[in-house]
Amino acid sequence: MANSTVLGFRYARLADDLEVKIREGVYRSGEKMPSLRKLHGQTGLSITTVYQAYIELEKRGVVIPRQKSGYFVKPLLGRILSPPEVEKMRPVPKKVTMNTLAYSIVEDMSNPDFLQLGGSVVMPELLPFKQLTRCLRAESMDAMKRSLMRYENPHGNAELKRQIAKRMLGQARQAITDEMVITSGCIEAVSLCLQAIGNAGDTVVVESPTYPWFLQIIEDQNKFALEIPTDPRTGIDLDQLERAVQKNAVAACLLVPNFHNPLGFEMPEEQKKALVKMMGEMTIPIIEDNIHGELYFGTARPTTLKSMDRKGLVLHCASFSKTLSPGLRVGWTLPGRFADRVKRLKMNSTIASPTLNQQVMAQFLKTGSFDRHLRRLRSALKNQITNTALAIARYFPEGTRITAPQGGLTLWVELDKKVDGLKVFQEARKKKISIFPGIICSATGRYRNYIRISCGYPWSEKIEKGIRTLADIIKKRT
Amino acid sequence: MANSTVLGFRYARLADDLEVKIREGVYRSGEKMPSLRKLHGQTGLSITTVYQAYIELEKRGVVIPRQKSGYFVKPLLGRILSPPEVEKMRPVPKKVTMNTLAYSIVEDMSNPDFLQLGGSVVMPELLPFKQLTRCLRAESMDAMKRSLMRYENPHGNAELKRQIAKRMLGQARQAITDEMVITSGCIEAVSLCLQAIGNAGDTVVVESPTYPWFLQIIEDQNKFALEIPTDPRTGIDLDQLERAVQKNAVAACLLVPNFHNPLGFEMPEEQKKALVKMMGEMTIPIIEDNIHGELYFGTARPTTLKSMDRKGLVLHCASFSKTLSPGLRVGWTLPGRFADRVKRLKMNSTIASPTLNQQVMAQFLKTGSFDRHLRRLRSALKNQITNTALAIARYFPEGTRITAPQGGLTLWVELDKKVDGLKVFQEARKKKISIFPGIICSATGRYRNYIRISCGYPWSEKIEKGIRTLADIIKKRT
Repeated sequence: MANSTVLGFRYARLADDLEVKIREGVYRSGEKMPSLRKLHGQTGLSITTVYQAYIELEKRGVVIPRQKSGYFVKPLLGRILSPPEVEKMRPVPKKVTMNTLAYSIVEDMSNPDFLQLGGSVVMPELLPFKQLTRCLRAESMDAMKRSLMRYENPHGNAELKRQIAKRMLGQARQAITDEMVITSGCIEAVSLCLQAIGNAGDTVVVESPTYPWFLQIIEDQNKFALEIPTDPRTGIDLDQLERAVQKNAVAACLLVPNFHNPLGFEMPEEQKKALVKMMGEMTIPIIEDNIHGELYFGTARPTTLKSMDRKGLVLHCASFSKTLSPGLRVGWTLPGRFADRVKRLKMNSTIASPTLNQQVMAQFLKTGSFDRHLRRLRSALKNQITNTALAIARYFPEGTRITAPQGGLTLWVELDKKVDGLKVFQEARKKKISIFPGIICSATGRYRNYIRISCGYPWSEKIEKGIRTLADIIKKRT
Repeated sequence: MANSTVLGFRYARLADDLEVKIREGVYRSGEKMPSLRKLHGQTGLSITTVYQAYIELEKRGVVIPRQKSGYFVKPLLGRILSPPEVEKMRPVPKKVTMNTLAYSIVEDMSNPDFLQLGGSVVMPELLPFKQLTRCLRAESMDAMKRSLMRYENPHGNAELKRQIAKRMLGQARQAITDEMVITSGCIEAVSLCLQAIGNAGDTVVVESPTYPWFLQIIEDQNKFALEIPTDPRTGIDLDQLERAVQKNAVAACLLVPNFHNPLGFEMPEEQKKALVKMMGEMTIPIIEDNIHGELYFGTARPTTLKSMDRKGLVLHCASFSKTLSPGLRVGWTLPGRFADRVKRLKMNSTIASPTLNQQVMAQFLKTGSFDRHLRRLRSALKNQITNTALAIARYFPEGTRITAPQGGLTLWVELDKKVDGLKVFQEARKKKISIFPGIICSATGRYRNYIRISCGYPWSEKIEKGIRTLADIIKKRT
């Protein structure tokens, strides 16, 4: 159910209807949409309301206005270019040894001179810093004193946990505040969970391609990564996964079922269920990274593996770094039957996350403006991704393939086999454009002719120019 | 050199002089100090200045006023009771398996109903929360926005590192800002360093008794603890350490040379040098926890092992949790030749510490009021420890031994061999008094008849009553 429907705005309801029809193909890419007057007649809604609906659809990146001739259907993300093919591979556990590439990428991320198409970071313009700052300043002297002068409970601030539990309605099967541990972002959550489920030498299943940071954590913990072929539209291949876990002693799966980074898919409901069932039967824990769960482009928030888990085997991880503030470092985990171990690891490694940061986040969530902000953010991201994909289709050489993300903020781009993504990355870096070379998304040496482009910045001419520059670099190497 | 001398306050200079004479035995415990008039005559200072000097000495816990008869020398901490004996032991690496005791202790720490003699936490009354809050509120909207909306550099905020480097003048041999990594408190610093120096299965030297948290980290990392007998006045036994590292493959030493927790000693300069030399020759890294380095009761800040290290083998760790704010979670490490590895581990496990917290700390350090605050804090802690020790001497049964800390905030109390410190801990817990049972300071089962009492609270009748209650519990078990 669409959030807008819940709120009952007429224009938003109309926009939802029209968007569904566009997705169903009732209105096709490039087609002219009904005029204001016509829809006014059909629906009985005022001209203003219909106009508002079109503005909303424009924000969502679904339609585009042309001067004096009304609104036209934008190409749907999924139809802009073909998706990358799933590469054939034989899954083998790999000792991970990432090079220092990742680090230079992170350094570029904090360099204001760079065009940031690398890190999957949501830009300040899209985040509600005014409201957050207001929450920070509204803290009374006494509340501030208390927050500065005491260690927070090692598991996290009670009010924050309550607010998160409220938001997670339907995302977990049982009461969750006792199970919850507040962390320094989603990364610490994943790192602690991965530590909790086993020991050095363990084998961990990941999607292929996967989020590079996962590989680095696996390396730091002296574990092995077992990469399973993953479809850019539907997620990890369950047949191959089944064979791989039968053949190898797998300690855990570390997966991003919702708006995978870099692929952007949402795993279909039935596949999620089959996955949880399969791992449940084999008693293999799944670490579920849901950091993009709120960044859906469809009309409803996706379900979680956690909500299907009856055995305490799903360790759910998430954070506010992509939706509210990267700098506050507030994330959380629901580690299922591993909760005691995760709590202990959290306490022993940092005592607790900072008090004030948790308090401010709890205050913000209490204001109730999070949902409004999220609606705006989702529209913006969808629009940015669509525009970036369109620019890639326009400028990149023929044969380029891209994903059609259902949420999140990254595009995964397959280049001609001859093109070395690492060289493209290095050339782009010289021109102060930051992207990810595909090879850092695997420990196997795969994805050499891939790059990841992140769409966290509001679409602009500067970005279009950046895409054109990338296209030139790539064309020279084709 | 005393800090007060640097500032040139006459009364403080006089107080320093008098304190040195008391320490040298010129004025003895219980003796009447010269009258205001007499000192006025001797020194040429005004009566007011002399009076201020006595007030200062009273604050420092060195003299005590008696109505109408002037000031008297308080018993020196070192002369209140005999120190605990060093137990004979054969150092053997131990697999660490701490029970859940530590966790229940931490829970009590955040329970306002408890008399807090357990956790070594400095109470809000002693911390400069007004200035800190002012720094927080003084951040401009723009600075706040920037802090909320971006990841900090993984190694830490540049200005904060500069401020810390300034304070660490003389505590390290070379330029340190590049080497420095900002962490979530000293615990994260120690945890990262310990991870950086080796692997699961490694043996780590610790003092015996040691800080319980160290043992928990060692356990989490699947390492072994090798406990070396440690003198409550001078620190780790270097002869036994030498024999132990010759006999065992030791991956690192994890030590608290300044104001050890729980023992409170400051390792003499010569012994520090011998330690660094010995470990340097054997290329064994030393993790130096200097969290109490600023909390000295003497007149000068102690030297660090880091300042004696020419080989990059000392990994120095510290934080502001005991001097400014436990809740902000700001610590740091200088990991010597292991800096790259620590930086990587920090980045991979949390991306970076929260931005705002580092900014606020940097702002506070820039105000320059830290030194003034530290002078007050040191006096207060010294006074609290002395008063607690005096109360223990008065109420605890004969045969009790206690340490004479040279800094920090903990007292280590040896009870009659028949008394089980764990039982005392449990009885005290029922009466809502939190202490540490000695056994959690070792993985060997030692220190059963010991308890640790923390003196982070301003001395009060309530605490005196608590000590009396403890004494009653102990007497019943003697």
